[in-house]
Amino acid sequence: MIRVGMGYDVHKLVEGRDLWLGGIKINHSLGLLGHSDADVLIHAICDAILGAANMRDIGYHFPDTSEATLNMDSKIILKKTVELISNKGYHIGNIDATVCAERPKINPHVSEMTKCMAEVMGIDEELISIKATTTEKLGFTGREEGMSAYAVCLIEK
Amino acid sequence: MIRVGMGYDVHKLVEGRDLWLGGIKINHSLGLLGHSDADVLIHAICDAILGAANMRDIGYHFPDTSEATLNMDSKIILKKTVELISNKGYHIGNIDATVCAERPKINPHVSEMTKCMAEVMGIDEELISIKATTTEKLGFTGREEGMSAYAVCLIEK
Amino acid sequence: MIRVGMGYDVHKLVEGRDLWLGGIKINHSLGLLGHSDADVLIHAICDAILGAANMRDIGYHFPDTSEATLNMDSKIILKKTVELISNKGYHIGNIDATVCAERPKINPHVSEMTKCMAEVMGIDEELISIKATTTEKLGFTGREEGMSAYAVCLIEK
Repeated sequence: MIRVGMGYDVHKLVEGRDLWLGGIKINHSLGLLGHSDADVLIHAICDAILGAANMRDIGYHFPDTSEATLNMDSKIILKKTVELISNKGYHIGNIDATVCAERPKINPHVSEMTKCMAEVMGIDEELISIKATTTEKLGFTGREEGMSAYAVCLIEK
Repeated sequence: MIRVGMGYDVHKLVEGRDLWLGGIKINHSLGLLGHSDADVLIHAICDAILGAANMRDIGYHFPDTSEATLNMDSKIILKKTVELISNKGYHIGNIDATVCAERPKINPHVSEMTKCMAEVMGIDEELISIKATTTEKLGFTGREEGMSAYAVCLIEK
Repeated sequence: MIRVGMGYDVHKLVEGRDLWLGGIKINHSLGLLGHSDADVLIHAICDAILGAANMRDIGYHFPDTSEATLNMDSKIILKKTVELISNKGYHIGNIDATVCAERPKINPHVSEMTKCMAEVMGIDEELISIKATTTEKLGFTGREEGMSAYAVCLIEK
């Protein structure tokens, strides 16, 4: 059996926060704001995986009102997400994601992000694709007020 | 044979309209504006299903210039959409959708929406996943000018 | 083996440019701005295909800093994208895409765009679905500052 899922996430860009994306820290003047480390890419991927398995979303499993998730490393969320679907008998088919950010350039970091997430998930790097696009200075990502990420995935039983 | 589809829909939030989402009426100070009941979640799901089957989109089958669709209950559109793909020999593999709304909280209503849509479509609730996210006060959904919804689905023959 | 991909692209609308969408020229007072012909629909589709095959994105293969891609017809990018995944042993399962544009009306052009892209890709028209939606005057597409496009696809080996 094969199922599809999609995830979409948004976080604000602010001063005084580190920028975590795809499990790695990226040098930038702004960082993403959130209860956890606000890794918008991992969050979109987790929502795609949970949605594919019909297991609600990360807000349900990792509430942003909980002490336990405060400043949480999103790699822990990613690892637990894969465990959640494994317990239901699913494994990852493949993942494809897109980060929308005007700055900084994401593409130079894609290899490292892929390697990092594949290790956390315990899957082959070939199963994770990360892409990036600007929104040509349009909208809230274009004005650098925030970043967004889209992800789709297939899971199989 | 398996095929994938995606849908995206947007409706304005205005005063003086009921808020219909996922086939149910939700208590809120604002409602979605549209020719039909403007159920943005059902519309995105219908577009994903029609797109997967390569059968155009809901604007094509249920034009917003027609008397017949004025204030139409979107559950009728959902039911007809499933009939349209059934006539072509397809059935739903699974659906995963995300509603973007700053307010009200969508998650408490997910179970009821899932149950409602599964009944209308004549499929198991396990095949429909509904998720929700705010856009962190960014963009038109963040400013509560409107709501948007994304959906992906697999269909099989 | 089956894999899923998704693409999202944005281009600005400006005066003095032709409007290319889905490989055809559409009569309109504004056109999309970009290094190539800025065909936002083809770009989203190419990113979905490359993402499904885990082969980076069109910015990686067709950099917008290169002389070779200046004013490039995006149909060439589409053709090369299909070649790239063919070389890896993949073929297109199906594609479903959505253009977000307040104006002009996209639906009257869907048949011609589908035919054009199917020819370029060397696949059956039944495998390409194109949909269109306004964003109800909301956001940058609603204000006609730009157009965006989403695409999902399945590829098979």
